[in-house]
Amino acid sequence: MSRFRVSIHIVPRRGILDPQGKAVTDALHSLGFSAVADTRIGRHVVLDVAAPNAAAADTAAREMCDKLLANPVTEDYEIAKVEGV
Amino acid sequence: MSRFRVSIHIVPRRGILDPQGKAVTDALHSLGFSAVADTRIGRHVVLDVAAPNAAAADTAAREMCDKLLANPVTEDYEIAKVEGV
Repeated sequence: MSRFRVSIHIVPRRGILDPQGKAVTDALHSLGFSAVADTRIGRHVVLDVAAPNAAAADTAAREMCDKLLANPVTEDYEIAKVEGV
Repeated sequence: MSRFRVSIHIVPRRGILDPQGKAVTDALHSLGFSAVADTRIGRHVVLDVAAPNAAAADTAAREMCDKLLANPVTEDYEIAKVEGV
């Protein structure tokens, strides 16, 4: 078994209101960053997993997203990176 | 001015306790995912910015992190990706 570091992005699904992102956009405008048109805020999860290979670590991470980490109704996730450590 | 999508990872600084990550690790163990040794949870921010080029978009995003998005005492950030849209 090797150790892998799996990075996951969990973001609000497109089309679903992201009130936290809207609040940050407004705050950035107040600070003078008028070039910002939109902000989406999600979670960046980094898992330290033991697995026989990178593909198994990826599969395990997807299962964890489906069962616990992401809300299947309002959020999308993607496995951003799997790297050996 | 072109439009760029800037992805930012904001994570708790190494060595600082991450209670949310600890709670998720415990929950994953309860669900049978015993291969998970550690979980770190941060924020994944996606900004939609108008800028003359990718380097300017990167610089603007770093300034936003310093001024608003990241807590300089407890968090580290990295600009993960700058892509034209």
